[in-house]
Amino acid sequence: MGKTSGTRGTSAMENRVRSLPREESGQPEEIFGLDPDFVAEIDDALEDGHEDVVRELVVPLHYADCADLIESLHGEHRQRLIELLRPDFNPEVLPELPDDIRDQIVETYGFADFAAIIEELDSDDAVYILDRLDEAEQAHVLARLPIETRTIIEQGLNYPEYSAGRIMQRELVAVPNYWTVGEAIDYLRSNAVLPEDFYVLFVVDPRHRPVGVVRLNRLLRAKRPVKLRDVMSTEMDILPVDMDQEDVAFLFRRKDLLSAPVTDASGRLVGRITIDDIVDVIDEEAEDDILRLAGLSESSIYVSTWETVRNRFTWLLVNLGTAILASLVIGLFEDMLTKVVALAVLMPIVASMGGNAGTQTLTIAVRGLAMKELTPSNAMRILGKELLVGGINGLAFAVLTGAVAWAWFDEPMIGAVIAMAMVINLVIAALVGLLIPLGLERLKIDPAVASGVFLTTVTDVVGFFAFLGLATIFLL
Amino acid sequence: MGKTSGTRGTSAMENRVRSLPREESGQPEEIFGLDPDFVAEIDDALEDGHEDVVRELVVPLHYADCADLIESLHGEHRQRLIELLRPDFNPEVLPELPDDIRDQIVETYGFADFAAIIEELDSDDAVYILDRLDEAEQAHVLARLPIETRTIIEQGLNYPEYSAGRIMQRELVAVPNYWTVGEAIDYLRSNAVLPEDFYVLFVVDPRHRPVGVVRLNRLLRAKRPVKLRDVMSTEMDILPVDMDQEDVAFLFRRKDLLSAPVTDASGRLVGRITIDDIVDVIDEEAEDDILRLAGLSESSIYVSTWETVRNRFTWLLVNLGTAILASLVIGLFEDMLTKVVALAVLMPIVASMGGNAGTQTLTIAVRGLAMKELTPSNAMRILGKELLVGGINGLAFAVLTGAVAWAWFDEPMIGAVIAMAMVINLVIAALVGLLIPLGLERLKIDPAVASGVFLTTVTDVVGFFAFLGLATIFLL
Repeated sequence: MGKTSGTRGTSAMENRVRSLPREESGQPEEIFGLDPDFVAEIDDALEDGHEDVVRELVVPLHYADCADLIESLHGEHRQRLIELLRPDFNPEVLPELPDDIRDQIVETYGFADFAAIIEELDSDDAVYILDRLDEAEQAHVLARLPIETRTIIEQGLNYPEYSAGRIMQRELVAVPNYWTVGEAIDYLRSNAVLPEDFYVLFVVDPRHRPVGVVRLNRLLRAKRPVKLRDVMSTEMDILPVDMDQEDVAFLFRRKDLLSAPVTDASGRLVGRITIDDIVDVIDEEAEDDILRLAGLSESSIYVSTWETVRNRFTWLLVNLGTAILASLVIGLFEDMLTKVVALAVLMPIVASMGGNAGTQTLTIAVRGLAMKELTPSNAMRILGKELLVGGINGLAFAVLTGAVAWAWFDEPMIGAVIAMAMVINLVIAALVGLLIPLGLERLKIDPAVASGVFLTTVTDVVGFFAFLGLATIFLL
Repeated sequence: MGKTSGTRGTSAMENRVRSLPREESGQPEEIFGLDPDFVAEIDDALEDGHEDVVRELVVPLHYADCADLIESLHGEHRQRLIELLRPDFNPEVLPELPDDIRDQIVETYGFADFAAIIEELDSDDAVYILDRLDEAEQAHVLARLPIETRTIIEQGLNYPEYSAGRIMQRELVAVPNYWTVGEAIDYLRSNAVLPEDFYVLFVVDPRHRPVGVVRLNRLLRAKRPVKLRDVMSTEMDILPVDMDQEDVAFLFRRKDLLSAPVTDASGRLVGRITIDDIVDVIDEEAEDDILRLAGLSESSIYVSTWETVRNRFTWLLVNLGTAILASLVIGLFEDMLTKVVALAVLMPIVASMGGNAGTQTLTIAVRGLAMKELTPSNAMRILGKELLVGGINGLAFAVLTGAVAWAWFDEPMIGAVIAMAMVINLVIAALVGLLIPLGLERLKIDPAVASGVFLTTVTDVVGFFAFLGLATIFLL
């Protein structure tokens, strides 16, 4: 399976250097995505049955644009476009599509033709797509692939999800460590089954374990009789196939790596991961943190309405539970509230400030864990700092809020009570904002998910309880 | 200025292939960062004045580890380590350090020695560091650089912040379009001032405008008399120097680019951006979104306590304002609250559910804008969907909450009122959660920043007003 990225489906654009518009273009945000007018044009052409026009416009598109176009169309039109593209379908479009549209393509083209498209993809993309088909479809497609491709993909599917083995590419050039520069160059010139593109040669020992890397520019600049071992760099990080992809991404970032060899349990070279594979992992990781902090499991605005309703319902239900818990706390002080109605007016302030201050600490902690800045060794120091920050801001807002409350209700004791409750809640918020993600991490649960609910439950309950409880003590 | 990354300061580690631990290592999270025991060992050695031991242990460290070590030490020990490292200071450590420690190094080494370190860095790293010094320091360091290096860095500093010009590297290999493969290879073999590492040749026309790219593996595999224009790829995106870095990152992701030429206003090739430069931009961008959504401007857990207090204070102050606004709304209904205390108990539920539902919509919208999935052309469709989702979940939670309230206070009308308020607030939350980021984007303000305050202000005010207002109508 040759590496075909960036070469297929581009014939119509060859010899056309695309220079991006400069400042004279008023709308830089429009230079990337698909022009809505273009989508409308295709839509009209499909409506009118001008198939030639559609093919002429769509076939030369970059695969990312083509995928966006397919996604933008609906119903009958999308189906017709998929059918029209069949003879020239660009395999690179597949990984860019959401699962349901990919299923539609499998149904339209049938397993044999779909397998033919899969075969032209890089092994990592092929594994990604096969993994996302349902089991029956997967078996049907695999059965229609040539034995070598099938074996490679099946191996890929056997690696744990989110592991280095899943994101690596099998396509690489490995050369023995006893070769000279001349032998390597002759091999590259002679051999027909090389990957389409590569930037380094991996040097392996007789047991196929990686011992070094030769960058092509070194190879080009060296003299033919020089031994590869004298131009290779041995400064490399070797990744086990089962390494977690987030750890791989962290290592790439920390060490500014461009590529790294991947080895199986016996140390044999089985693939390579390059920095461009890592970009997707980084995007996913950041996306996950952002979405989970807001209690979302959908990943894009394209998810269907019904699925969106269901996804969000669960989270809102949990929130309803915690809101009711907070109300139960308030309910404990019903008598007090009828006597001093000012308390009902002011009580959301304490809870809200605690929730916001806690979210600040929580967000820093979740990102610190994700970026491996927050570790068991510095957790105590950070806790001390967060408690101090919570205490200082707690005092500042105690003074401010106390003064406002006193002025508003002309009752100094109400000011004193809200001030005390504020300090308590902001310190608790700092404590809990840090301990929740650390605790989840230790339990091997993603610290981003569910942290927010726990936090606001605590800050609401503590906020209402401290404020109304102190009021009961000091105002009666 | 030669490209030196990855080759300096590694001599002690050459010939040492680092294989990462496999599953037998119980604590995979510890394989990356610095071992706390190691830090303690260095700390002790510094305390006891064992300078040789410190140098022996620290000099061979990877630059990322070395930077972490400097950051982990405090006061006198950090200062002593910086002094000890002076003769072997690895320039790559500099970009990894926070600003205040970099200032400490400038002070310790003096401008001349600091300039000598800067000179060994890639142009993009040098520009980054100079940019972060204060003006006086910047002028002193620039004055001590050789004229060519200074010119390059000054040009870099003149490009707008966050532009392609700031993140590009000037080091590249450009060859004329009339050369043959043989001529290019001879040039690479002869020329002494080439960058340390490169993966492609940029082919330029006589006016130094990029016309194509030759990947080194193509060059190696082609015959000497072949023209470069016959092996070059013209499928490339050319980036203007003033393009926004987030747009550059978007383009790299969308098109799966590995590198792209950067041109000045007259179309001349002035630099190149590679995918590894983009990783930092992507990280920053995601980080910004995450932090701004939580109202944070600090970027790491390492920020000092005092700065953290100040950063968070501002945001909490804004929140206090909105919380007081919500209290004012509650204050309008004081009479009502004394008559029906159940309202005080239940009212936080409506506000809280609105805030959470709105945050879900808001987060999806902010990410959709950042990833350029949400555009003017599909905003109306997404709005329709979000309103529908808000309405459906609003009805679901109206039923649930209404039933709970009815059962709790044994008063059907309280259930009906909270149910109506819930539907209103969840629909408003969806509307506002989408319109706020869209509006900020149109005003060219980062949609992530401040969205959250506006949103919760609206959901609190609407929540309390709808619930207490409806109660006034229906319960009296």
